[in-house]
Amino acid sequence: MTQPAPADLLAGLRRLLPEARVRGDADTLASHGKDWTRFYTPAPAAVVFPVSIDEVQALVRHAIAERLALVPSGGRTGLSAGAVAAQGEVVVSFERMNRILDFDAVDRSVTVEPGVITENLQGYARERGLFYPVDFAARGSSQIGGNIATNAGGIKVIRYGLTRDWVSGLKVVTGRGDLLDLNRGLIKNATGYDLRHLFIGSEGTLGFIVEATLRLTTPPREPAVMVLALPALDAVMAVFAAFRERLQLTAFEFFDDRALGHVLARGVPAPFATRAPYYVLVEFDHAHAEDMDAALAAFEHAGAQGWIVDGVISASETQAKTLWRLREDITESLAPRQPYKNDIAVRVSRAPAFLAEIDALFAREYPSFEVVWFGHIGDGNLHISVLKPVDWDAATFVAECARVNVLLFETLRRHGGSVSAEHGVGLVKKPWLGYTRDAVEIDYLRALKAVFDPHGILNPGKIFDPA
Amino acid sequence: MTQPAPADLLAGLRRLLPEARVRGDADTLASHGKDWTRFYTPAPAAVVFPVSIDEVQALVRHAIAERLALVPSGGRTGLSAGAVAAQGEVVVSFERMNRILDFDAVDRSVTVEPGVITENLQGYARERGLFYPVDFAARGSSQIGGNIATNAGGIKVIRYGLTRDWVSGLKVVTGRGDLLDLNRGLIKNATGYDLRHLFIGSEGTLGFIVEATLRLTTPPREPAVMVLALPALDAVMAVFAAFRERLQLTAFEFFDDRALGHVLARGVPAPFATRAPYYVLVEFDHAHAEDMDAALAAFEHAGAQGWIVDGVISASETQAKTLWRLREDITESLAPRQPYKNDIAVRVSRAPAFLAEIDALFAREYPSFEVVWFGHIGDGNLHISVLKPVDWDAATFVAECARVNVLLFETLRRHGGSVSAEHGVGLVKKPWLGYTRDAVEIDYLRALKAVFDPHGILNPGKIFDPA
Repeated sequence: MTQPAPADLLAGLRRLLPEARVRGDADTLASHGKDWTRFYTPAPAAVVFPVSIDEVQALVRHAIAERLALVPSGGRTGLSAGAVAAQGEVVVSFERMNRILDFDAVDRSVTVEPGVITENLQGYARERGLFYPVDFAARGSSQIGGNIATNAGGIKVIRYGLTRDWVSGLKVVTGRGDLLDLNRGLIKNATGYDLRHLFIGSEGTLGFIVEATLRLTTPPREPAVMVLALPALDAVMAVFAAFRERLQLTAFEFFDDRALGHVLARGVPAPFATRAPYYVLVEFDHAHAEDMDAALAAFEHAGAQGWIVDGVISASETQAKTLWRLREDITESLAPRQPYKNDIAVRVSRAPAFLAEIDALFAREYPSFEVVWFGHIGDGNLHISVLKPVDWDAATFVAECARVNVLLFETLRRHGGSVSAEHGVGLVKKPWLGYTRDAVEIDYLRALKAVFDPHGILNPGKIFDPA
Repeated sequence: MTQPAPADLLAGLRRLLPEARVRGDADTLASHGKDWTRFYTPAPAAVVFPVSIDEVQALVRHAIAERLALVPSGGRTGLSAGAVAAQGEVVVSFERMNRILDFDAVDRSVTVEPGVITENLQGYARERGLFYPVDFAARGSSQIGGNIATNAGGIKVIRYGLTRDWVSGLKVVTGRGDLLDLNRGLIKNATGYDLRHLFIGSEGTLGFIVEATLRLTTPPREPAVMVLALPALDAVMAVFAAFRERLQLTAFEFFDDRALGHVLARGVPAPFATRAPYYVLVEFDHAHAEDMDAALAAFEHAGAQGWIVDGVISASETQAKTLWRLREDITESLAPRQPYKNDIAVRVSRAPAFLAEIDALFAREYPSFEVVWFGHIGDGNLHISVLKPVDWDAATFVAECARVNVLLFETLRRHGGSVSAEHGVGLVKKPWLGYTRDAVEIDYLRALKAVFDPHGILNPGKIFDPA
């Protein structure tokens, strides 16, 4: 439940920002105190909407003086509660800082405020004959500041890398209230520690991103999409190898038949009549006729080996988009079932053995639950969604998932994997951080936090607890 | 002058490592106390050659206890004196840690000790049908550990990025003696601050790199090379744009006629009879016939505009290699003249205005000096070599270069540039760091140093001085 904001807290904030941009009403507290995770009750004390770097700096300095906890807030599409305010914090929403500030065709770069929506940046680049390649299902709501704070990945990582790879400049306000102007759009700059990379993926715990310069690139030429039906889990990596060696892949995505069932139930057309336990979606550059020949050769080879039992290829951009819905609509189609999500990664080479182990583990531990598998398998990244049985209450369900997590993450640790591939740690993965980062590393993380945020005012309690 | 090593220091080190791998002889001190910079007199107290991570940890712990300064040493090809030991330090050479430990064809990754020579890694990848794309003239001597410690760039950055972009795992021993195993080869891993990126480019001041996992990629298909003659500096960026919009460039390199003269004097064949003030070398993927058509279209367009006055294109791999020598042999051809090097970068869009300003500046300030220009202009990165007049002594020459540096770096600062694009800071650029990183940033760099190396034993005095 949201609390009424203390009048003196609001009054203090209103000395910094106009009254209309300091909100304490229940609706705003409820909407801006949460993200796409559904297991926390939002309870911020206030929500502020700065419109300039100066205002962000003033807010941070005020927070230092008053020992207020600040939670940065973007598109609130996060899945690890990194932007949840459930402890009376002040939410700093960047949604009013949403201007595109500069574009340079020679540098192929764009400078933006943090509240620019991912899809708007993609469209802005496209209008200029260029391409911003970080892409994922939440593109219509997520904001660039949040993408950077979580080092967002998504569906094109196999070809274009992560958000980290596209940030050539970053302005941040640290927990000391300092404004840092990092790297300024340079391609090469070997002048000491690259602080830019420290802030990328730091989930707002070291500084708030107030401006970013992003590189753009040449758009891919006419990508084509295939969806293939696989009879067995262990065929996935063989199919991956067959396509990767012949084509420039831009995506290699995986989903199981349960996921397909939920998407088809929303009215997305079936790719083919065949149903199989698993499917992959392959996207590749179709710049030359020989690319299509190579794709068909891979398809025939995989079929001859028995790795695939059916398949379809897009003949138009519209068909390609329709096939993508099979993969991209999964998250939304599962949402009504309040899935408990795990977003894990292993090295690609470890994936077959790891998948076989957890498949057996889930069959044993979740006999009565519906478990849906999908993910960016070409990056070794798997999303596992456990659907809440309709008659279970949320707390009991989460506790049961946490019990199985111990078994899952012990397996993951043996395979050298990550408990959060791309969703970040936030609150949701905090209890499990030690399965990926050892105690010595976490001590260094805490020491870095103390350097940039010595008063502990920036997104406190996210990623790790204070020592 | 090198000093005789104190007997007790050597005795202490020999309790950790066998006697043959703890050297105090004058030859070893002289050879291992310096890099390719020539303005410092090597004066280490000892040189040690560990062969394992355990030995490196033991050395660091010993250094903490005895307050010894340690200087990491790789191929010693650095140009900023990052690996110079001129203050009685103990040099830790990684040349005996030169094994390739693991290769995985599915992950397309290789795990190496830090002393593996760059060219050996490139060859190892090639033998397996893969490609390690970081490449530069010192490839035959430089080592992977040094490449990572300086975030080496080189000639393929325009297409493949920097060393940073290829490191998927890193083991480091910090200045506290802790062994950190960072990222372990994962593609996606969103579990808190990415310490890996903090160590990349930190020049051995935060930790010593003891193992690395590097990604490999698909080799480029039959790259073709053009060398073009340009009548004027301001044509460079126009030619760049003409080629970039039509082709997938893998290199776009620049050099002036003085540089060409030095290379031709070594017996490298001239590309064509024409001499012009400036030249560019363009390398591009020649995977399809239409790529060559596009290259010729760019060539014709540039010629029609008067941006180029002559040109040649490779018809074979051998010819491509010969053309590359025009660019790659520059450094070696200048070496006898003890050049004072500046390795600077600006945003590509800023390059024309910046180049015009420094061209005028140098004409005014260096009227009697020979100034040679070359660089990775497609990255905004220019190497400027001022050749020492034969009759000047080194100290007077360096002092004169430092005087002009103030003017150069003031210009650079106005254009938002970097005083070290890819050579690092070391000792050479330390006095100029403030032209690229502001005082507040440098304070944070110092604070990070204190976290990872609180005793100040790792490469002390490099990048910045203690507060």
